[in-house]
Amino acid sequence: MTRIFDNPADFADDALDGFVAANRGYVARVDGGVVRSTEVPAGQVALVVGGGSGHYPAFAGLVGPGLATGSACGNMFASPAAGQVYRVAKAANAGGGVLLSYGNYAGDVLHFGQAQLRLNAEGIETRTVTVTDDIASAPIEQLEKRRGIAGDLTVFKIAGAAAEAGLDLDGVERLAIKTNHRTRSLGVAFDGCTLPGAKDPLFHVPAGQMSLGLGIHGEPGISEHAMPTASELAELLVSKLLNDKPEDAGDRVVAIVNGLGTVKYDELFLLFGKVEKLLAAAGLTVVEPECGELVTSLDMSGLSLTLLWLDEELEQFWAAPADTPAFRKGSMAPRAPRAEAAIDDAEIADVEQPTAAATDLGQLAVAVLAQVRDVVVEHEEELGKLDAIAGDGDHGIGMRRGVDAAAAAGEAVSGSSAARVLTAAGEAWSERAGGTSGALWGSAVIAAGLSLGNRETYTSEDAAEAVKAFVRAITELGKAEPGDKTMVDALLPFRDAFLTELDGGAPADRALAVAAAAAESAAAKTADLRPLKGRARPLAEKSLGHPDPGAVSFGLITSRISQFIDSQLAAAAPSGQRSTGNGAQA
Amino acid sequence: MTRIFDNPADFADDALDGFVAANRGYVARVDGGVVRSTEVPAGQVALVVGGGSGHYPAFAGLVGPGLATGSACGNMFASPAAGQVYRVAKAANAGGGVLLSYGNYAGDVLHFGQAQLRLNAEGIETRTVTVTDDIASAPIEQLEKRRGIAGDLTVFKIAGAAAEAGLDLDGVERLAIKTNHRTRSLGVAFDGCTLPGAKDPLFHVPAGQMSLGLGIHGEPGISEHAMPTASELAELLVSKLLNDKPEDAGDRVVAIVNGLGTVKYDELFLLFGKVEKLLAAAGLTVVEPECGELVTSLDMSGLSLTLLWLDEELEQFWAAPADTPAFRKGSMAPRAPRAEAAIDDAEIADVEQPTAAATDLGQLAVAVLAQVRDVVVEHEEELGKLDAIAGDGDHGIGMRRGVDAAAAAGEAVSGSSAARVLTAAGEAWSERAGGTSGALWGSAVIAAGLSLGNRETYTSEDAAEAVKAFVRAITELGKAEPGDKTMVDALLPFRDAFLTELDGGAPADRALAVAAAAAESAAAKTADLRPLKGRARPLAEKSLGHPDPGAVSFGLITSRISQFIDSQLAAAAPSGQRSTGNGAQA
Repeated sequence: MTRIFDNPADFADDALDGFVAANRGYVARVDGGVVRSTEVPAGQVALVVGGGSGHYPAFAGLVGPGLATGSACGNMFASPAAGQVYRVAKAANAGGGVLLSYGNYAGDVLHFGQAQLRLNAEGIETRTVTVTDDIASAPIEQLEKRRGIAGDLTVFKIAGAAAEAGLDLDGVERLAIKTNHRTRSLGVAFDGCTLPGAKDPLFHVPAGQMSLGLGIHGEPGISEHAMPTASELAELLVSKLLNDKPEDAGDRVVAIVNGLGTVKYDELFLLFGKVEKLLAAAGLTVVEPECGELVTSLDMSGLSLTLLWLDEELEQFWAAPADTPAFRKGSMAPRAPRAEAAIDDAEIADVEQPTAAATDLGQLAVAVLAQVRDVVVEHEEELGKLDAIAGDGDHGIGMRRGVDAAAAAGEAVSGSSAARVLTAAGEAWSERAGGTSGALWGSAVIAAGLSLGNRETYTSEDAAEAVKAFVRAITELGKAEPGDKTMVDALLPFRDAFLTELDGGAPADRALAVAAAAAESAAAKTADLRPLKGRARPLAEKSLGHPDPGAVSFGLITSRISQFIDSQLAAAAPSGQRSTGNGAQA
Repeated sequence: MTRIFDNPADFADDALDGFVAANRGYVARVDGGVVRSTEVPAGQVALVVGGGSGHYPAFAGLVGPGLATGSACGNMFASPAAGQVYRVAKAANAGGGVLLSYGNYAGDVLHFGQAQLRLNAEGIETRTVTVTDDIASAPIEQLEKRRGIAGDLTVFKIAGAAAEAGLDLDGVERLAIKTNHRTRSLGVAFDGCTLPGAKDPLFHVPAGQMSLGLGIHGEPGISEHAMPTASELAELLVSKLLNDKPEDAGDRVVAIVNGLGTVKYDELFLLFGKVEKLLAAAGLTVVEPECGELVTSLDMSGLSLTLLWLDEELEQFWAAPADTPAFRKGSMAPRAPRAEAAIDDAEIADVEQPTAAATDLGQLAVAVLAQVRDVVVEHEEELGKLDAIAGDGDHGIGMRRGVDAAAAAGEAVSGSSAARVLTAAGEAWSERAGGTSGALWGSAVIAAGLSLGNRETYTSEDAAEAVKAFVRAITELGKAEPGDKTMVDALLPFRDAFLTELDGGAPADRALAVAAAAAESAAAKTADLRPLKGRARPLAEKSLGHPDPGAVSFGLITSRISQFIDSQLAAAAPSGQRSTGNGAQA
């Protein structure tokens, strides 16, 4: 039961405020999370971690010298939005580039991925290592599909120590990847956790039972077992992890017994004692173990065992000192406080004085966003019904929330460059719409905006680049293939038609009209497809004969934009002349 | 729910083994608890803390440089036995004396007090500061009667830092007393905790309710309230603590928000944020606060707020570094491991070669202990029934467990000095009998044994000293007054008669016979008394007309000893001669 709050909706935010108040010597609040309040040596790689709230000390509790530089903090069990990750990373960056690291969950992958695109686009070199330690979540042949649970700690710790030691981004990334490849975890749940304001836990395990293979977001396990003794439980966890050990495993391991929330310290120690004996019997030496609450899940009753097979350099970085609110190791010299200005400045994405052309384009972008909002509002109900056939029916409301927020955010910076209007709109879309399609649309709008930059003139070349950036964001982050029955099935025909038309010498507005028609036609054809990805997959049969809602909404939006551009040109050139090749209005 | 164990009866022991296995760089196991595994500078005051298990990180998690030197670890929520405290303190002692510090609970006071007597008797200067921070447990006029809860941490931390800074025992004791006097806590419970192997929690708080004034041993609170918002809860806790502030309070405070087990980190931080604002509004500055699980109660749902009003020297010691398994602060230079021999040696109470007289007396003590066992076994049922009239009926079984263990322990070191036989017997009595009377008897038997030392001859002087030591242990530890209807009402007449007879020139065996008769007579007369202390107090009326079981058992035991000594003398001197003045046989 989670009981201490004023308004459950403000829980994560209020808790983060209190966390910062209790730990001012370590962390400072920035919009989206926290960064170290102590000096970060210039040029040091910034390790930015994060994820949903409710996992303390993951993730904000791990920010400090020798470990993370910043943490993006989402709502309860929900990924931080891309904008949050972006702002935290900007504030954490000390000129040495950024390593993003987090547990492998779809929402986090999308949002951190979107932030990475944006950071790289702005010249802050950014890499990603996702943590995939949970052996229950996929077989060893699909290591990259596994979830991240308490193995977060080994990867963060070693990457943080490597950054502290002055390794460059290549070096830190390499060590994080190696640590992840040599880390294995397995957990068990005895009962579920309760979100703030909820009356009931997210799940229940029957009394006297244990669920093997828990997640850390209230996911129950994959199989149920009678409650074992501590010795039997240790045997089960150790044997399953040893069966899954990496190919190049040595005989020195870090062992971490992690409590999820209500399995308490004495119980964790008791289990650790049994685990250590079993590992010794298997010929392994346990090096500087951890036993406590390190990656939790509110008041969930459960625990996990993590093993990291060390080699010489991993052992050195694991043993290195760290000094954070929740994880302290060894003896670390005190750090000077970071100048407040350095933290504040980082929060503001400064934009150079925009050109007249960029401002004009920004004005058009604001108007286009209003059109996008209108067409989605008009079709909200239809999109919802379409999604309800084989999905959960929220595509209409989700798109509505996204475009409302995006149009308002664009309007709020009216008078700025197109880049500024579209990044503001994309951020708002992503943060307010929620879900996969919101993150993809937001990310794509930001990518298109960033590609437009701040130039003296804009040509159809720039329009082509913007479309390519838009599409790339969606395919890279969403990872859907053509034929999977997703938005991508309308998106690629749109891009191809647009680029072909431009190559053929068509003006941008004409290319847009052709491309939008191609998108609508391709969206309609998705009715023949069987979904291979996304949430409609389990109901594949039902969806046959109906087009994909994401493809349909993309077609509707591009058509409306094309109509709007045409009407604007018609109004500007009553003589019937059409623009010829200047893509500024596209 | 506490779930992880093999055999619930071994839970505390198994958990402590696992704790040590996970923290070998900090602690080493000794019989009775843990001591630092790192070097303690020679002459440094040893801070020995402790209490029942189930409160991690209290108490074993707080052992390390800058904090405690050792921790005596009892069973779940049960005081460590005096022998445990004694052995941990012996192992922790670095030649600078020992400060015992623990929460103010009757069982702990008895057992730590008994250990203190023994340590002082052996020349290890030992002092005690009990923690009394819980404002709900007694009014401010009775500060010394308050319980200790999370205020343990402030007292231990500052005493540990003072010891680390090289202050002598006077200085460390003075700071611990001052810290305790300036520390206030108040807690709330939302639901109870469950002991290992138990099906149900120790208590329940009705859903939607909150119990104010919780204890840390599963005690529910003193009044029930509707569940407040976090802001209301912060307001309640802060206002009640500020109303109870010490007279010389300044405006700088340490604030500690402590979770009892299942109120989790985000909730604690959220509350801390509200608390800090209220303290600031009251003109107070919060200095280096703590927010987390610091003194827990298994999986209890509850939290407490602690305030320590600082002055300059307290602030300095609060801010000083500490490095323990569960509490780390600042930057502390690494410590060399302590030589294992130093820890092992300390566990053994070395005894010099006993004299022939001491060995003879030891042989007699073994025989006397067997008689004590026999008389208690014969009267076990009667004592139980007598105790059931106004108590919980366990005096018979408790005494039985104590004397069985004492007789066996004495027998096991047969051939040693009386001092060794009686200290072994007293320790066993105290550890196995449990409860107040077990601790008092054990302590008294040890005190009598220690007073006998290792001499070339024994006289009735020595018998007088042994009786005085026996009585002093009980009156100092038990703190009962004559007329309170306890064992003391038979004990003092026994002592007075014994000393008067000896003063009058009677031989020790004769003095013993007179004294035992006085004890039996006085025990019978307790039937007229109304209990003023101890557990019979609530049922005072019922006990009128029945003697106190503790006084009765004391009378029975002394009479049996007297009869046994007489029979031994008769057997040794068939001519009818009686010993005249050599107290060796008493």
